Amino acid sequence: MTPFVAELLGTLLMILLGNGVVANVVLERTKGRGGGWIVITTGWALAVFVGVVVAGPFSGAHLNPAVTLGFALTGQFAWSAVPGYVAAQLIGAAAGAALVWLFYYAHLKATEDPASKLDLFCTSPAIADRRFNFAGEMIATFVLIFSVFYISDGNLTLPDDGTTLPVGLGSVGALPVAFIVWAIGLSLGGTTGYAINPARDLAPRAMHALLPMGTKGSSRWSYAWIPVLGPLCGAAAAALLFSGI
Amino acid sequence: MTPFVAELLGTLLMILLGNGVVANVVLERTKGRGGGWIVITTGWALAVFVGVVVAGPFSGAHLNPAVTLGFALTGQFAWSAVPGYVAAQLIGAAAGAALVWLFYYAHLKATEDPASKLDLFCTSPAIADRRFNFAGEMIATFVLIFSVFYISDGNLTLPDDGTTLPVGLGSVGALPVAFIVWAIGLSLGGTTGYAINPARDLAPRAMHALLPMGTKGSSRWSYAWIPVLGPLCGAAAAALLFSGI
Amino acid sequence: MTPFVAELLGTLLMILLGNGVVANVVLERTKGRGGGWIVITTGWALAVFVGVVVAGPFSGAHLNPAVTLGFALTGQFAWSAVPGYVAAQLIGAAAGAALVWLFYYAHLKATEDPASKLDLFCTSPAIADRRFNFAGEMIATFVLIFSVFYISDGNLTLPDDGTTLPVGLGSVGALPVAFIVWAIGLSLGGTTGYAINPARDLAPRAMHALLPMGTKGSSRWSYAWIPVLGPLCGAAAAALLFSGI
Amino acid sequence: MTPFVAELLGTLLMILLGNGVVANVVLERTKGRGGGWIVITTGWALAVFVGVVVAGPFSGAHLNPAVTLGFALTGQFAWSAVPGYVAAQLIGAAAGAALVWLFYYAHLKATEDPASKLDLFCTSPAIADRRFNFAGEMIATFVLIFSVFYISDGNLTLPDDGTTLPVGLGSVGALPVAFIVWAIGLSLGGTTGYAINPARDLAPRAMHALLPMGTKGSSRWSYAWIPVLGPLCGAAAAALLFSGI
Repeated sequence: MTPFVAELLGTLLMILLGNGVVANVVLERTKGRGGGWIVITTGWALAVFVGVVVAGPFSGAHLNPAVTLGFALTGQFAWSAVPGYVAAQLIGAAAGAALVWLFYYAHLKATEDPASKLDLFCTSPAIADRRFNFAGEMIATFVLIFSVFYISDGNLTLPDDGTTLPVGLGSVGALPVAFIVWAIGLSLGGTTGYAINPARDLAPRAMHALLPMGTKGSSRWSYAWIPVLGPLCGAAAAALLFSGI
Repeated sequence: MTPFVAELLGTLLMILLGNGVVANVVLERTKGRGGGWIVITTGWALAVFVGVVVAGPFSGAHLNPAVTLGFALTGQFAWSAVPGYVAAQLIGAAAGAALVWLFYYAHLKATEDPASKLDLFCTSPAIADRRFNFAGEMIATFVLIFSVFYISDGNLTLPDDGTTLPVGLGSVGALPVAFIVWAIGLSLGGTTGYAINPARDLAPRAMHALLPMGTKGSSRWSYAWIPVLGPLCGAAAAALLFSGI
Repeated sequence: MTPFVAELLGTLLMILLGNGVVANVVLERTKGRGGGWIVITTGWALAVFVGVVVAGPFSGAHLNPAVTLGFALTGQFAWSAVPGYVAAQLIGAAAGAALVWLFYYAHLKATEDPASKLDLFCTSPAIADRRFNFAGEMIATFVLIFSVFYISDGNLTLPDDGTTLPVGLGSVGALPVAFIVWAIGLSLGGTTGYAINPARDLAPRAMHALLPMGTKGSSRWSYAWIPVLGPLCGAAAAALLFSGI
Repeated sequence: MTPFVAELLGTLLMILLGNGVVANVVLERTKGRGGGWIVITTGWALAVFVGVVVAGPFSGAHLNPAVTLGFALTGQFAWSAVPGYVAAQLIGAAAGAALVWLFYYAHLKATEDPASKLDLFCTSPAIADRRFNFAGEMIATFVLIFSVFYISDGNLTLPDDGTTLPVGLGSVGALPVAFIVWAIGLSLGGTTGYAINPARDLAPRAMHALLPMGTKGSSRWSYAWIPVLGPLCGAAAAALLFSGI
């Protein structure tokens, strides 16, 4: 598997499972309806786990432009590889969101509330406030990226041909990163719904705009810059602190 | 323990615990009644954990014809061993379902609703729709089998006699596969109840038809082909993709 | 730490935390009141984890006469050491129950319902039926002991003086045994409340009879033989099957 | 990273996530509102996990004056290093509490109940009773410190310069200590809200007194000595028992 395919498939699996758990909790007539915050946050943590298990040995399992940016800013990851990683993450996230739409299509049709339909694609703030929402996404992503620095591998060697891998999370990082994402969701997910990943929010939001689902509300593009820029700024702050101490 | 006995006992334990948690949540007057989706999905994940802990070192702990098919299609598992594995899985699943019936018999008698009684044997769709239900079981099983490929052992050596084991999950695979099943249940269990295993659904459905339990509804045989063919097609798709990349 | 002290302290910690979580969920005015089955089963699983972490390297962390009996019946543990282990387990369980009583005393006084007060000492069946309750405790304990056989260490060597340890669970067994107990609680705890341990039920029941707690109901001694004999028979069945295959 | 910086950052992350989960559950209009005891205790356990992952390799991740005292009393940690560790823990806890205040500021303003606002800074007893509250904090912290002794590393060697580290929890201790804290929260958190850490309660209480948050109730300084002295006495008891056996 090439790093590009690994990032694409890992992100696809992560979004399929991550957005899938939101669908299961918020849509009408599902078996997990009303399962609450413990179901959503556990599901998202395990979605990251599955993505990292699959992609880890091949790409370092960034699955998130903020992770890629963080590793690039600390000099552990080549800037030249950043565009390919981010493209794979965006394509994977879009494909994963489309699969959730297909998987829960009958339940999307059975659901009236447009806010619930948007929820299973992208994030919305509990209390809309540009400054606090931006700060929240930045702080939550700072926690993610800063912690990930302490569980990431150094340069790995590919088992088959002896070439080295970009830095990131190998398979052994799947459990700790899942626990870190679980922590962030439980503790810091209460305000903006913890995008903490530009690809996770932007590409599914585009799929919400494109895909048919009966009555549909706004894709809220006016909010879309916050879960993109907030996480990138959080990653930059984490890289700065990590490099400085 | 021979691989046949390991598959039989591992599947028996998995179904006893997996169908047991459904019984605990849906039957009348149990201590776990109303425990919700987090209880059901955590219980099923740990049911797989226990089955793999016991069977792992002896058979690779497939416990699922879709897993066996996936390994056979990728050329990692001998086709000649497939019928024995599948037979053991079906017998184990039937025995496990009968044990749940015995274990919760007093509560089955205390429960009126025939749908609840069926739930602790086999799966039913939240919204009945042949195409989406089939696609759902196929996608969810694809996620299972594709992920399992990345945590499975290569050929193992039996500790006592030096012979090699069929590929699958050794004891070290018990935790990651439990987390993968937890993820699938939380995220993709909302539509069909995630059979993702032909033996898990078919054999207990037969036990529902055979065993007495007071007033009893239909065993819904018209639905039974979906949790058999859907998972097998999902496993084939996973094997195809795994082999192609 | 001698094996006797390890079994005593490990069982004490396990009962303090295990009965503590029941107190937190069922007594009046606690912060965990109404937390439900997921809180109780997770708490009990982690109670076992803590007990095994502490006692594991010194006694093999049986913490349960059924575990000790199982290892003795399979010939892995000396019969001569059984009485000392069981005595330590009973004393530890009694002391742990007394600590829960002290810890939650203000809440015991604030609680009227005598059944809730009994719950935090020992188990009661959801539907009283001698045959099914006995079979239930036997089956649940069979699952525990049979699984534990596959995660237990062989004879360990003490790090300081080179003597060998009795078989059981070292520190590395703490996580898998906690997951097994979590599984049993979620799936098979719905009928009798999963004692699966004679010491866990008998010694705290005696403390319920002895300790003052305002209005107090019966200690239900007529039921007490089931969570003692059921688990011992389950352990014997597990040892028989384990030895036979 | 120096040990001082590690303790400060580790405690900051722990309090940001730990107090953050309380904010998410108790404040108005959050996404986790009403998530219950399973959300709070899981969040706190994972908060400790993240703190230990980051600080573990650099300071042994005490993150708690009671842990530092326990290691000092058993002679494993130099008394001369205690003041620096405790100062870092207090500064980190204060900074973490201030970040939670910033993160959830819009929700603090949307919340009327002063007791809920206090909850996300420091602990309050469910039933106020000086003796039982003190005993409760002492017993719960005894369980923490005594268990931590059995998972702590011996003296570690720093990877870069060959100097030895103070004793404590390295990265491998992050999972077991998180499980121990999870156990304590579920089982022994029902009475006082399990401070089990003087820094975790004292410094955030001071931030509650200092920071603006609309209508604000008392910081309850009359209770503040219990989550300081109780944990320290519990640590001393654990060190005494650990040294004696």
